[in-house]
Amino acid sequence: MKNIYIIGIGLIGGSLALNIKKLHPEAVIYGIDNNPKHLEEALSLHIIDAKAEIEDVKKADLVVLSIPVDTSVIELPKILDMVSDETLVIDVGSTKSDICKVVDKHPKRRNFLATHPISGTEFSGPKAAFMELLPNKTNIICEVEKTAFKLQQKAIDLFVNIGMRIRYMNPEAHDKHIAYMSHLSHISSFMLGKTVIDKEKNERDIFDMAGSGFESTVRLAKSSPEMWTPIFEQNKINVIETLEDYIKNLTQFKELMQQDDFDAIFREMKNTNYIKQILKGIA
Amino acid sequence: MKNIYIIGIGLIGGSLALNIKKLHPEAVIYGIDNNPKHLEEALSLHIIDAKAEIEDVKKADLVVLSIPVDTSVIELPKILDMVSDETLVIDVGSTKSDICKVVDKHPKRRNFLATHPISGTEFSGPKAAFMELLPNKTNIICEVEKTAFKLQQKAIDLFVNIGMRIRYMNPEAHDKHIAYMSHLSHISSFMLGKTVIDKEKNERDIFDMAGSGFESTVRLAKSSPEMWTPIFEQNKINVIETLEDYIKNLTQFKELMQQDDFDAIFREMKNTNYIKQILKGIA
Repeated sequence: MKNIYIIGIGLIGGSLALNIKKLHPEAVIYGIDNNPKHLEEALSLHIIDAKAEIEDVKKADLVVLSIPVDTSVIELPKILDMVSDETLVIDVGSTKSDICKVVDKHPKRRNFLATHPISGTEFSGPKAAFMELLPNKTNIICEVEKTAFKLQQKAIDLFVNIGMRIRYMNPEAHDKHIAYMSHLSHISSFMLGKTVIDKEKNERDIFDMAGSGFESTVRLAKSSPEMWTPIFEQNKINVIETLEDYIKNLTQFKELMQQDDFDAIFREMKNTNYIKQILKGIA
Repeated sequence: MKNIYIIGIGLIGGSLALNIKKLHPEAVIYGIDNNPKHLEEALSLHIIDAKAEIEDVKKADLVVLSIPVDTSVIELPKILDMVSDETLVIDVGSTKSDICKVVDKHPKRRNFLATHPISGTEFSGPKAAFMELLPNKTNIICEVEKTAFKLQQKAIDLFVNIGMRIRYMNPEAHDKHIAYMSHLSHISSFMLGKTVIDKEKNERDIFDMAGSGFESTVRLAKSSPEMWTPIFEQNKINVIETLEDYIKNLTQFKELMQQDDFDAIFREMKNTNYIKQILKGIA
């Protein structure tokens, strides 16, 4: 791998660039981004070696598409139109159905691999990128069978060398389950933040009462709306289902409190403590 | 301070014991707990110097009451009955109205100080205790004017020497605001855990999809139901109000999605990003 093009040089794109550079010191990492400030930051942080334009991807060995998911579905077919037969193009978006659908009949479909590294922080942009974001995390790969053998191997080798666990899934199952495992957490956190701000915004002193519990539960409410709005839009049906389940459970909890059924409240919490077992081993 | 009695030698009681021992190496720390295993653990971890019985508090210079809040309101009056005129009794519970009410007319009211250290983790028991839990955290003190001057000073000196910030508040305001800043976070996290477990319990593989975002948002769902059920019960009215606000905001978010109003979804999240400014500086 010599010529690497990262389109969208933010948290994930930047962290991937750092890992690729470590594994392939001979590679030249080109950054493409419609935010000139991000490009300059990425250069000065040595995340990329040079700036490039979208047309340059015709010279690429690897293209990483790490931009918001609504833009991905527009750009990916155009990128596939431009690349050579040998080029591997991957995306790293948080939704997988739409991106797989949009290139399903593309003549260069076999150059593309749909991936979703389960890793992130509440920060964005090249300054948020760091080497350790990806090792020991899971990378979900969709429709692997639609990618050319050689390019599958190239991608898997890269992820395994970074230290990622690979899991294969179809795009519909990915989007359904990720709505529960990730998208709902973001909304629950954003709405927790909103609820508290709405109530307490005129009482700034009150935020001295915030402890580490509030802070960790509300952490995701710092996330980028530019990134998350298109995710919720693409995964609308699944996300609405998770919200309905969540609101139903909260309403039931409230009703148990109103009925003074604190034995049931206790049991609800005791059963949910099971999450300890489930989360054991997650980095 | 020579004879210190910690009633309930868990996360907060144990962490306080460790800090007191560091500041007052000459003090003898006695542990009282109705869980014999916890007492043995606290002894072997050198959190306490000796076991004691509740009647021994008559010899105490300081009594720390760190048990579930439903038991606190029963035990506190009895403890005040037993202690000497010079004894400082503090509680560290997460609700403050009921405990202040229950001793309001007690002849030894001036021996008591109501406190709430805003610190904790999702773990409990003496093994969860650690020195660093309390320094640099906020301690909320209620009805300070009802405590004897000398004992006020004794308590404040202790908390300041531990490195805590002190904030004064009336119990009703404490309970109202802490419902938003802490109790709601716990319920939002428990119900997130429940929602995901209900949906995914038969698909254990799915939990490979859990990232750090899910993990931090659901962390509080590991908390102790024994501790939290009585908190929700004592603070029922305030907690139900926060739940109604939270459910309303989630429902509105869901409806905006159903209406495809993703501009409004974007604005909701952008406005809530304000939480970044608010949380700056919280340890």
